Amino acid sequence: MIEIVHENSIPVSFGDCDPAGIVHYPNHFRWFDATFHALLRRWGGGHNAICAELGSIGLGLIDVGGTFRSPAVNGDRLDLVARIVEWNARTFRLAYKGMIGERLVVEGFELRGVFIREGERLRGGEVAPLRAILEAGAARAAS
Amino acid sequence: MIEIVHENSIPVSFGDCDPAGIVHYPNHFRWFDATFHALLRRWGGGHNAICAELGSIGLGLIDVGGTFRSPAVNGDRLDLVARIVEWNARTFRLAYKGMIGERLVVEGFELRGVFIREGERLRGGEVAPLRAILEAGAARAAS
Amino acid sequence: MIEIVHENSIPVSFGDCDPAGIVHYPNHFRWFDATFHALLRRWGGGHNAICAELGSIGLGLIDVGGTFRSPAVNGDRLDLVARIVEWNARTFRLAYKGMIGERLVVEGFELRGVFIREGERLRGGEVAPLRAILEAGAARAAS
Amino acid sequence: MIEIVHENSIPVSFGDCDPAGIVHYPNHFRWFDATFHALLRRWGGGHNAICAELGSIGLGLIDVGGTFRSPAVNGDRLDLVARIVEWNARTFRLAYKGMIGERLVVEGFELRGVFIREGERLRGGEVAPLRAILEAGAARAAS
Repeated sequence: MIEIVHENSIPVSFGDCDPAGIVHYPNHFRWFDATFHALLRRWGGGHNAICAELGSIGLGLIDVGGTFRSPAVNGDRLDLVARIVEWNARTFRLAYKGMIGERLVVEGFELRGVFIREGERLRGGEVAPLRAILEAGAARAAS
Repeated sequence: MIEIVHENSIPVSFGDCDPAGIVHYPNHFRWFDATFHALLRRWGGGHNAICAELGSIGLGLIDVGGTFRSPAVNGDRLDLVARIVEWNARTFRLAYKGMIGERLVVEGFELRGVFIREGERLRGGEVAPLRAILEAGAARAAS
Repeated sequence: MIEIVHENSIPVSFGDCDPAGIVHYPNHFRWFDATFHALLRRWGGGHNAICAELGSIGLGLIDVGGTFRSPAVNGDRLDLVARIVEWNARTFRLAYKGMIGERLVVEGFELRGVFIREGERLRGGEVAPLRAILEAGAARAAS
Repeated sequence: MIEIVHENSIPVSFGDCDPAGIVHYPNHFRWFDATFHALLRRWGGGHNAICAELGSIGLGLIDVGGTFRSPAVNGDRLDLVARIVEWNARTFRLAYKGMIGERLVVEGFELRGVFIREGERLRGGEVAPLRAILEAGAARAAS
């Protein structure tokens, strides 16, 4: 299996923090999502190009979780790594790990699908074509 | 056990949605957190008053998860219910359920603690005094 | 001139506030925008329906400003009023005023246009058809 | 006058954009504010250290404006420059300019003060000590 991974370095700012002075936690998920989109850009040309090729409206979220190990504050630099750890028929799973220096701040995951519009509803399309795009991008980079 | 619960009605707006036209998922956690704070206000006088009484810097997050069942879009009204479902020695757990009309949109949970500052570090304080405050508020309302 | 106005009542939460305990100011603009979209919903059936009728991709922003008179904090209820105060050929102007009880918190404006996609570019379409939709909605409500 | 300026390079992500596919405008102000805080960090050791020295609760916002010249979308890199262009007795003014490559996207300003808590109220303190801190930082860097 070719590993699909991307590292993002996120500057934590004053406005990301709450009255306790700590990052307001939904921002961590904003950063998960931004890192996923940066991964798509790096290995597959970006969400728009990939969705056009797959006939999908979006590589949307099904399930997500996060565990917070230590606080992040204004001025910190959060090094966040996203890694695709599971390819299923109609879902794929990303693992996230965020460090500030040597200190673990957040761990989490996202389970996503390839959303296809069918009339009023969304259904999950096949994931294999997405895998092929990203692995081809990673193989080109490795060669 | 006295049930600690709060219902929040959230108007979903254009700016909460992404280029696929669906709520950008970190906003769901923003709404979880806002509903938790509304619950504190209703039953315990709000986060500030409670933290002052407990000597805490915040009723912070340890672990969180969400499962997304169907999309929410601009103009929807999301009825989000928060419920405290577990009181442990140093953590407590909330369950969340968000509906648009009869349709299930999101389910999730938060595991939180009573954060106490100790020098540079945070530790989890006892949860029993928080429980006493909220149950007293709920008992007053019921009587 | 038929007045197009909408009042929005916004619960200010912990997560809207920064480490100084005061609303992080970009949230005020999020609330301006949400109030504009609620105004469209009330008088014209919502942004989607209006844009479909006008062949527009969005009633987008050109210019915006805000003046902050006093702070808003967790637990406040911000009463925000949006009013269309100017109809020009290719732009229209909204005025905003936000109060907490009797206290003025924020005043501002937005200058918006009816964005039409032309190849790679956006241009500002005529505003008169938008005005007709909203004034017809307001006239129906008044009768 | 020693120039106090800071350039920030901001990756625009999918989740920053609205259903029209364009950056939801309050995010531009989030980036203004983050760039201001990065400027404080670079020249004065950061907001916390500066406020401790000045006895201030925050270098808060009084007035703000933005003009949007062209859209920013997912995958763009926004080069945003903040510059202090005016030092008054109790306020100071920043100018912002955001480019994507050679294309102008946003121009704006912030008028800020040195907020001092006095009982329940905030008042604007003297700005000269802040100016001294930042100009000393810039002078050290230049020498």
